[in-house]
Amino acid sequence: MMRILLPLFCLGALLAQTPRPRAREAGVVTGRLPVGRWNAITDVAGVRVGHATRVRGENVRTGVTAIVPHSGNLFREKVPAAVFVGNGFGKLMGSTQVEELGELETPILLTATLNVPRAADALLEYMLGLPGNEQVRSINAVVGETNDGYLNDIRSRPVGKDEVFAALRGAHSGAVEEGAVGAGAGTVAFGYKGGIGTSSRVLGQYTVGVLVQSNYGGDLMIAGIPVGRELRRAGQGSKDGSCMIVIATDAPVDARNLKRMAARAMLGLGRTGSSGSNGSGDYAIAFSTHRGGSPLVSNDDMTPLFEGVIEATEEAVNNSLFKAETVTSNGHTVEALPVERVLDILRAHKVLSK
Amino acid sequence: MMRILLPLFCLGALLAQTPRPRAREAGVVTGRLPVGRWNAITDVAGVRVGHATRVRGENVRTGVTAIVPHSGNLFREKVPAAVFVGNGFGKLMGSTQVEELGELETPILLTATLNVPRAADALLEYMLGLPGNEQVRSINAVVGETNDGYLNDIRSRPVGKDEVFAALRGAHSGAVEEGAVGAGAGTVAFGYKGGIGTSSRVLGQYTVGVLVQSNYGGDLMIAGIPVGRELRRAGQGSKDGSCMIVIATDAPVDARNLKRMAARAMLGLGRTGSSGSNGSGDYAIAFSTHRGGSPLVSNDDMTPLFEGVIEATEEAVNNSLFKAETVTSNGHTVEALPVERVLDILRAHKVLSK
Amino acid sequence: MMRILLPLFCLGALLAQTPRPRAREAGVVTGRLPVGRWNAITDVAGVRVGHATRVRGENVRTGVTAIVPHSGNLFREKVPAAVFVGNGFGKLMGSTQVEELGELETPILLTATLNVPRAADALLEYMLGLPGNEQVRSINAVVGETNDGYLNDIRSRPVGKDEVFAALRGAHSGAVEEGAVGAGAGTVAFGYKGGIGTSSRVLGQYTVGVLVQSNYGGDLMIAGIPVGRELRRAGQGSKDGSCMIVIATDAPVDARNLKRMAARAMLGLGRTGSSGSNGSGDYAIAFSTHRGGSPLVSNDDMTPLFEGVIEATEEAVNNSLFKAETVTSNGHTVEALPVERVLDILRAHKVLSK
Amino acid sequence: MMRILLPLFCLGALLAQTPRPRAREAGVVTGRLPVGRWNAITDVAGVRVGHATRVRGENVRTGVTAIVPHSGNLFREKVPAAVFVGNGFGKLMGSTQVEELGELETPILLTATLNVPRAADALLEYMLGLPGNEQVRSINAVVGETNDGYLNDIRSRPVGKDEVFAALRGAHSGAVEEGAVGAGAGTVAFGYKGGIGTSSRVLGQYTVGVLVQSNYGGDLMIAGIPVGRELRRAGQGSKDGSCMIVIATDAPVDARNLKRMAARAMLGLGRTGSSGSNGSGDYAIAFSTHRGGSPLVSNDDMTPLFEGVIEATEEAVNNSLFKAETVTSNGHTVEALPVERVLDILRAHKVLSK
Repeated sequence: MMRILLPLFCLGALLAQTPRPRAREAGVVTGRLPVGRWNAITDVAGVRVGHATRVRGENVRTGVTAIVPHSGNLFREKVPAAVFVGNGFGKLMGSTQVEELGELETPILLTATLNVPRAADALLEYMLGLPGNEQVRSINAVVGETNDGYLNDIRSRPVGKDEVFAALRGAHSGAVEEGAVGAGAGTVAFGYKGGIGTSSRVLGQYTVGVLVQSNYGGDLMIAGIPVGRELRRAGQGSKDGSCMIVIATDAPVDARNLKRMAARAMLGLGRTGSSGSNGSGDYAIAFSTHRGGSPLVSNDDMTPLFEGVIEATEEAVNNSLFKAETVTSNGHTVEALPVERVLDILRAHKVLSK
Repeated sequence: MMRILLPLFCLGALLAQTPRPRAREAGVVTGRLPVGRWNAITDVAGVRVGHATRVRGENVRTGVTAIVPHSGNLFREKVPAAVFVGNGFGKLMGSTQVEELGELETPILLTATLNVPRAADALLEYMLGLPGNEQVRSINAVVGETNDGYLNDIRSRPVGKDEVFAALRGAHSGAVEEGAVGAGAGTVAFGYKGGIGTSSRVLGQYTVGVLVQSNYGGDLMIAGIPVGRELRRAGQGSKDGSCMIVIATDAPVDARNLKRMAARAMLGLGRTGSSGSNGSGDYAIAFSTHRGGSPLVSNDDMTPLFEGVIEATEEAVNNSLFKAETVTSNGHTVEALPVERVLDILRAHKVLSK
Repeated sequence: MMRILLPLFCLGALLAQTPRPRAREAGVVTGRLPVGRWNAITDVAGVRVGHATRVRGENVRTGVTAIVPHSGNLFREKVPAAVFVGNGFGKLMGSTQVEELGELETPILLTATLNVPRAADALLEYMLGLPGNEQVRSINAVVGETNDGYLNDIRSRPVGKDEVFAALRGAHSGAVEEGAVGAGAGTVAFGYKGGIGTSSRVLGQYTVGVLVQSNYGGDLMIAGIPVGRELRRAGQGSKDGSCMIVIATDAPVDARNLKRMAARAMLGLGRTGSSGSNGSGDYAIAFSTHRGGSPLVSNDDMTPLFEGVIEATEEAVNNSLFKAETVTSNGHTVEALPVERVLDILRAHKVLSK
Repeated sequence: MMRILLPLFCLGALLAQTPRPRAREAGVVTGRLPVGRWNAITDVAGVRVGHATRVRGENVRTGVTAIVPHSGNLFREKVPAAVFVGNGFGKLMGSTQVEELGELETPILLTATLNVPRAADALLEYMLGLPGNEQVRSINAVVGETNDGYLNDIRSRPVGKDEVFAALRGAHSGAVEEGAVGAGAGTVAFGYKGGIGTSSRVLGQYTVGVLVQSNYGGDLMIAGIPVGRELRRAGQGSKDGSCMIVIATDAPVDARNLKRMAARAMLGLGRTGSSGSNGSGDYAIAFSTHRGGSPLVSNDDMTPLFEGVIEATEEAVNNSLFKAETVTSNGHTVEALPVERVLDILRAHKVLSK
């Protein structure tokens, strides 16, 4: 199986080498807050991201992405967490326990809709096998998804233990691969190839990072301009699909205020032109990596963190589109966002920073 | 007391005569869906809106706005309804019963924060006095608010029975007065004078109408352009405050899907530049005026209604800003949105329709 | 007005002197956990309770009860709090802000359904007038209710500023008056006179106290025995009505776990025979008086607090019935629970402790 | 694999032949409402239940139970449904989509905690394979669980496709096997062997049926009598664990009122002595089998259905205990409820009907 996976990683590496720019590199600056070093969820210290992309034959184009809050045994060192359900037409596993107990005890996996159980089973196996977990008999696996069934033979549920372990073990800090990689390998957003995108904001001593798996629709807006309409793509049966949003922060925030942060991601989605369609399963999962005895951020001091979430969510979606390459699979071709044309449009509207 | 109120109505009439344009009249077209005849919540047949504005001396500038779903006895002919809590830092009264029973049994009132109980008591008196309600011993008054305490001596709670009855009795169909009127008399949005705004969308056989009481902040975006920043107003302590959103439709939608419609209003708020700040009590209340035996709109068919909510919410906020005049009260002056300068900015960005 | 109120207090004093026993004094021991000194919500240090009972003519029999978490300025020293909505057919005011911000900034008032706004307005006036609150422009008044319209001319909304201020200023620690007093003056439970009841549990270093305003129905069960049926009272149109439950603890518990405590109150209500009827507005409000830097009680250590809530809720309901006297008002008579017959039944079932 | 399973079914048959009485047969009559023909969830016409019990070696004792709302293709003919989260410390899969869309599109499976993903994957495979589902790319599998890790080697996750398909295909109407069978094979309740139990209530033209997977604790109460304490079992580390509750009705009830029905199950759990412990994942899933154009049951007419849920939940738990045999597995023995001693206690308290 690793023989099959190795080429995928090579492919992933190739994708990462493409010259497609991230949104900000191309002059699309979202909001006014400063970004972190990597402009990624990994700017939150300790957070790591790993992808395993699964390509098989003509029809399989999918994968799994792992977001790992810290490098310890997460079951033994849980982190405060919350889930906000923007639109619950989705198969997110693990949400009720996160809501009840206010904590996360596994890494978060993102994958394809029908692959959630297999990914979750592999995540359980991974967690059960960690040193110190020999007696553990209950684990709340958190696995989200969007539906990549247009470009992927989703019914075959091809993501299993190999991919999940590869994503978890390959998770790293620093730059995050974006676009058609991992759980974003086969997703579609606004009629273009979507996928994984990430961004961050620095708010004084704290950082907020966001990672999205974009697979939804509406009238695409970039920097406030309805580029989707200008590209004459709007309404092409591209309204449905979903967006998974993962939010990390190092601020000392408890589950209640993490849920409020998660809710703000919807304001960011709104700015991208989301139609909030019936079929869009939109969930935001937020966690804090903070440990130790610092006082919690008070309600009154939450606003900057909220603003960071909104801006980083919008920019993460932009990055998912800017970075994703054209993909042909499962009998369909979904084109990459035509970056040059988009930039021309934005330039005409004088909203580019360069 | 009516002697005091009469001049207010004259003032209201004067305000309604001002030449300030609505956003669409000025060329700011939000989205792509068609609007109704009045581009107002009153495009939903049977829905009426009434304002009572309360101005007293140097310091009182407030009021009440009534949204009346139909002209019958609402307690006896309840309408399906739902509340979505975008951010619950607010004093909305009546939400838990609407959530539990899925219905509205009084008109909706909007007023000032500390005035909610007095307005609610007056609403109870009004409802108890309706023919047919002689034996009624339980009524769920729905009263929302935003905080106009910057321009208004809010601690004096000046809205009482006279104003509430005037707003209810004066409620009418057709054009709706916008801006610094009724519950919008003293509110502030994005550092400018906010207030009441409304808009609608027509979706085939159905109509969606939205009315807002804008009193919140962030980086004002109009037509996607961060005009707030370009006007050098951003960050002027204007982040807090709230937005009440009332949504009406004639589509046969039950409480569950009305709640989903209400949730979409947040995507529209996002597009106006809302920072989702801690202090912003953002609630959306949705109701359906449909009666009779038509089958409910299915989940699958809800998307156009969702899109209508998003677009109409954004445009209603724009209208609240475009229409509100400069107000001086309570020792402060809040300027009206400088429409010409805004239009210049939007024109420079080529997002005006004319 | 005080002249009118004074006799009421005398009446209250008389009621308090009646020989009707509390449930435990009569041998009805609920559960197995020890009770506090007063077996009352006031066993949580600092918590005070005040009643104002309003009797006027033949038809008014109502009142207000204030639960005061501490003796400071609650707006300036808020306490963690949460609301659980067991059945939302009620008019509880203030719940969404408590849910969002996880804190309580006013004392809790209980009163009659249609009197909530007037009581809330008086509570605002009280809070605005406290030293230190001169600049306050936003207060979230928390006011709950049950419907005493059978024994009370509820449409006249007779509880106003005098009663609210009297309840707040008269709030005291120590023994709590129970039965037909304050907000319980006119309520009916299981076809008998209900009202205010309270109980507490001591769980090692922590205390949990519960106060109820009983006004609901079903098949009354006491100590597990369906005494309602044996008394041939069940089904006498007594299913509707509501129960307000206030829970206090000195344990360091945050809003999330306070909400979980509040949810357990429903298990206690279940044991009293509640039918959970459509019309029963059942809310539990929980707060913690803990201040200072102690670590929060962990999820794992919450179970004893949950058990305390369940037991104290059941016993508080029992006390509300045991202590309430027969009341005739508004053209109706509601008899007190026939304690001797109840005890005979319980004795026959061998569930009395004596 | 079927060779392994066949003996299990024989064992299941043997268990079903044991002379242990159901609670009502033994004289424990819960409440006052009449029961259906089978006193089971299958009294709701069309509802079927199937079990597959998995016993392997010395350590595996677990299984899966399927509750099938109707005999058609549930994905194509969804049923209204809702989930109430009594305590979310559990791994219920599928809840957010049920909440959002108000419908169920797969049978409900119950199994062991760590086995949820494997059971869900098998359920997906089953659904994808149904005639008419060839193009389906999104299915919301609903799988609940309790933790049988005391009597079962839960880490091995032994329930897979064979067991799930066997439970689904073996689902039948009529009498339901109870006790240590299917998902109840390895569960423990109140320190005794728990498992599957069911009961029903007939409310005029409508029926309510409940099935539980009991695995929780507290001070066991039967017919209101704290038999747990009298058996000197209380407090034996038996507080944790969970209870899954499935509720079916043929009444025309929409998702909102189904959720309210589900919430009432907690009142029934309260009557069994549940401590509502931190570790108890208590979920109630309710669905309606009604099809066609009948008007929905109004809010006002819901109370009998609520009462039916409360009574049937309590009795279903009793049945799970009465029917379960002593089990030794995984190095532990959990004794069956000593029915004769329990009946002696209940007889002494004069609460037996015979």
